[in-house]
Amino acid sequence: MRLDQLGLIARHKDMIARAIDAVETRKSWSPFKDSPSTKIHGAEKPAAGKAAFEARLGKRYDLGQPGVIAWVGEEVSPYTQEPLGITYPASDPQALIDAAQRAMPAWVKSDPEVRMALCAEMAIRLYERNFEMAQAVMHVAGQSYTQAFSGSGPNALDRGIEALAYAAKAIRSVAPRAAYHRDFAGEPVALDKTYTLQPRGIGLVICCASFPTWNAYPAMFANLATGNPVIVKPHPIAVLPMAIVVETCRDVLGEFGFDANLVTLAVDTLAAPIAGAFIDDPAVQIIDFTGSPRYGGHLERTVTGKLLFTETAGVNSIVVESVDSLPSTARAIARATCLFSAQMCTSPQVVYVPKGGISTSDDRASFGDVAQAIVAEIEAIAENPAQASAIMGAVQGKVSLDVVRETREAASKHGLSVLREAAPYEHPQFANARTLTPLVLAVEPKHQDLYAEERFGPVLLVVAAESSDAAVAEATHLAKTRGAISCYLYSTDEAFIDRSTDLYANAGANLSINLTGAMWINFAAAYSDYHVTGLNPAGNACLTDLAFVASRFRIVQRRRPLAAKEAV
Amino acid sequence: MRLDQLGLIARHKDMIARAIDAVETRKSWSPFKDSPSTKIHGAEKPAAGKAAFEARLGKRYDLGQPGVIAWVGEEVSPYTQEPLGITYPASDPQALIDAAQRAMPAWVKSDPEVRMALCAEMAIRLYERNFEMAQAVMHVAGQSYTQAFSGSGPNALDRGIEALAYAAKAIRSVAPRAAYHRDFAGEPVALDKTYTLQPRGIGLVICCASFPTWNAYPAMFANLATGNPVIVKPHPIAVLPMAIVVETCRDVLGEFGFDANLVTLAVDTLAAPIAGAFIDDPAVQIIDFTGSPRYGGHLERTVTGKLLFTETAGVNSIVVESVDSLPSTARAIARATCLFSAQMCTSPQVVYVPKGGISTSDDRASFGDVAQAIVAEIEAIAENPAQASAIMGAVQGKVSLDVVRETREAASKHGLSVLREAAPYEHPQFANARTLTPLVLAVEPKHQDLYAEERFGPVLLVVAAESSDAAVAEATHLAKTRGAISCYLYSTDEAFIDRSTDLYANAGANLSINLTGAMWINFAAAYSDYHVTGLNPAGNACLTDLAFVASRFRIVQRRRPLAAKEAV
Repeated sequence: MRLDQLGLIARHKDMIARAIDAVETRKSWSPFKDSPSTKIHGAEKPAAGKAAFEARLGKRYDLGQPGVIAWVGEEVSPYTQEPLGITYPASDPQALIDAAQRAMPAWVKSDPEVRMALCAEMAIRLYERNFEMAQAVMHVAGQSYTQAFSGSGPNALDRGIEALAYAAKAIRSVAPRAAYHRDFAGEPVALDKTYTLQPRGIGLVICCASFPTWNAYPAMFANLATGNPVIVKPHPIAVLPMAIVVETCRDVLGEFGFDANLVTLAVDTLAAPIAGAFIDDPAVQIIDFTGSPRYGGHLERTVTGKLLFTETAGVNSIVVESVDSLPSTARAIARATCLFSAQMCTSPQVVYVPKGGISTSDDRASFGDVAQAIVAEIEAIAENPAQASAIMGAVQGKVSLDVVRETREAASKHGLSVLREAAPYEHPQFANARTLTPLVLAVEPKHQDLYAEERFGPVLLVVAAESSDAAVAEATHLAKTRGAISCYLYSTDEAFIDRSTDLYANAGANLSINLTGAMWINFAAAYSDYHVTGLNPAGNACLTDLAFVASRFRIVQRRRPLAAKEAV
Repeated sequence: MRLDQLGLIARHKDMIARAIDAVETRKSWSPFKDSPSTKIHGAEKPAAGKAAFEARLGKRYDLGQPGVIAWVGEEVSPYTQEPLGITYPASDPQALIDAAQRAMPAWVKSDPEVRMALCAEMAIRLYERNFEMAQAVMHVAGQSYTQAFSGSGPNALDRGIEALAYAAKAIRSVAPRAAYHRDFAGEPVALDKTYTLQPRGIGLVICCASFPTWNAYPAMFANLATGNPVIVKPHPIAVLPMAIVVETCRDVLGEFGFDANLVTLAVDTLAAPIAGAFIDDPAVQIIDFTGSPRYGGHLERTVTGKLLFTETAGVNSIVVESVDSLPSTARAIARATCLFSAQMCTSPQVVYVPKGGISTSDDRASFGDVAQAIVAEIEAIAENPAQASAIMGAVQGKVSLDVVRETREAASKHGLSVLREAAPYEHPQFANARTLTPLVLAVEPKHQDLYAEERFGPVLLVVAAESSDAAVAEATHLAKTRGAISCYLYSTDEAFIDRSTDLYANAGANLSINLTGAMWINFAAAYSDYHVTGLNPAGNACLTDLAFVASRFRIVQRRRPLAAKEAV
């Protein structure tokens, strides 16, 4: 082993050990700071990050990849609605596959501890570039500056290091060698057994457009640690963050003596998608997909003979049965709805409130009271441009504006009560930002067609449920049949909570109960919160658990007689 | 928890702990004795086991299962070539699925430690019935008495307990609860998080005909421990061993307060196979298959959205490059070929010997010398009826006689050298036993079509290879493309061994080097030997590793504010 590789293992040993402790105890932990405050990072880094981002605009982003056949780029900033003008190397898929296969033998032979240390180093280098990453995420995905910094930075890197912790657990659980002694028919037999970790093959990581890094890091690090090369296929409208990631990984690999082509970027266009070329290739043995239920479902129904991990989407719901404080509950719901304009996989879409109203600590609140309290809290955010911009950010795709418009049209058609009209807010920094505050509708269970599938955009449907139990029954039924990543429940009645939790568990729906206050209720903490259960249509994989990692490598053994001197 | 359940956990805690230690160290260990010696078991047990078996003949085997629509049974003893006359309850598939689903909620709610202790208890009860099991396995599969006792008894139960050890590791790695503390925007947040293990759904376990228990136990225990009910689908010609297993499991479940329908038997006939009805049902979420590459491959190509674990078969090969002792090497090869008349998934089918001969410790041996040495050792076994019966047992299916006949016809057609003709041997106890000693042919690489696919029966093809390196190249290519479960290599040249091992590893072929002596070279020891790599067409699953278990359950979480008194 090279000295610098040994040094890297020593340098990151403690971080990996602490990550393992965190996933075992599920406590709050991170090696990073997720606030962009200059008190933490100094005054220069934010400006340098912005400058690095701006220096990319209108230019080629060269990654030194093989087989480049074109330079493509279709990104448009949701904040300026102008093209970024960056073009990326579109490599021939076969060239990337060939390069990964050539790089593989030395990677397979390397000590898994080196591979894990390299992943840790990649994470740290990416943290160092996080102000640049924040700008990149803002201008392709539309996240607010603070969210892009935290959610697509440390919070995402933590998910990656969490996967690394599980990889370490799975890898280290395999003894590399054993002495085997047993008598057979009275004759002592002594064998020397060697157990080698063998990767499966190339891992394809297909990223979503709105939150590319958060799901990519776990898949990338899980693959690399277990010996598999990685080809990253970003969404064509959100390439830049993953180009930064791939560049950083390639630099680290090259610096420590490995082939940079262990990590490459597969760029395509909306008109000519390229994922299929990789999915169909026998050299690609692992596929991690984050994105639409449509394409994810297609993969789930058609991919065989390969490992497939999916995270798609579903119908996240809130049931309000009773509350201590209506304003704080309404605020929690409003904030979750407003956060990144409901473009998160944990954003709630449906709020069930019993049509007969709910009890509060000191009184009762009607259905209308609850709905109006939520609307008032949304309004408070929407009418304050500083808050609105920090929370809502921008709307990434025009398609989300269409979703809201179509939902509004359906409301008119069905004569539904519009509790709040969607409208742009004025962004304080970007006059041309594509913004939209949430549309809020009051609906009834008979309008289920309107709310029982994902509407990706700032839309909230408040359902007047027959009863709280009927609400939980429907919410969990939808979770089971349509998928759900996060569900929320508000109740002061422990008996109600008790009888509801089993229903959520059986629907494979992670549940947050009575969350209010400073933490976003749809925040999922690495090391502590399991993300996606794999038990409903919102995805088959969990970020992250042992199962996310344990199948990415296999074990090949050899055995031979123990040498006489060792057999004694 | 019931007191008897608590007692069961205490009773089996140590055994599970020792099994975990064994899988971590890969040492030789077993809680059982795998010899049928009356010195160990006393004089009465063998006779009682035989009597229990004989008492079943010609009768219905009632398991108390729901939805019985017919009584079927097609088993014929390979030793008597007479029907056993036992009929089994053929239940309506939907009735078994419904019953499993009704049984599931209480099983899900039970403590995983109870479930693991129940599996351990099942294993111990099955060990107590092992003389009966040995008779059952003999008379459906054709294994010899000693092999049926050990290989289908303790050695198989050990594989099951090994899976239990991995289940314990995976299950216990999930903290059931955590307190989460973090500041958000300066406000302390304290959450109580609960992590619940949730099973996937019904596990279908499809057993092979020749070695039903060995692969079934790991799948059954892995499923049960992780909360999934089990439906066992035995091969219609080898039902009895699995009926004994299912009966024992149902008894244990009922005795400790659980629904016996957590384990049921799905019986079918050769004319009307029933597996598809289960495979297509959405309630069945896990499929463990052991059997033919044809059906296993079909499942691998068609099953989506479910967990699928397969073990099929391939072309196991031996390469002889050089030897210390030709007789002991030839004896090891001959014994492996003769064991259970080559009806094992680890039986070698092809022996590569360089056409220019090999070096031995004191001389050289020609291709013919090596081939003749192997034949001589097979002869020594075949001409001694006591040895032949203990090693070869009987041929389970007429189809294997056809395989040998067709191979012999091909030899004539291609003018191949027949080194040894296949012939029945006279079984000392069973005059009518279906026996056949191995056909041995000398072939050349140009006859690859003849040896490059599994020939399930007593056939050994000795290939005159261009060179040892060419032999390894072909053996590993066949392993990668056609599958291989066990490969064998004989060489005194460390440089040759070194350059060969990577090729075997890349082909996903487990390799035994220079094994001779008392241990059968194709013996796979639970806790120590990984069985099947999942890297070639011989199956996608390994018995057993973390990956065999970690995906059989999922994790559902809930979180809520930590109660004030706990949050301090």
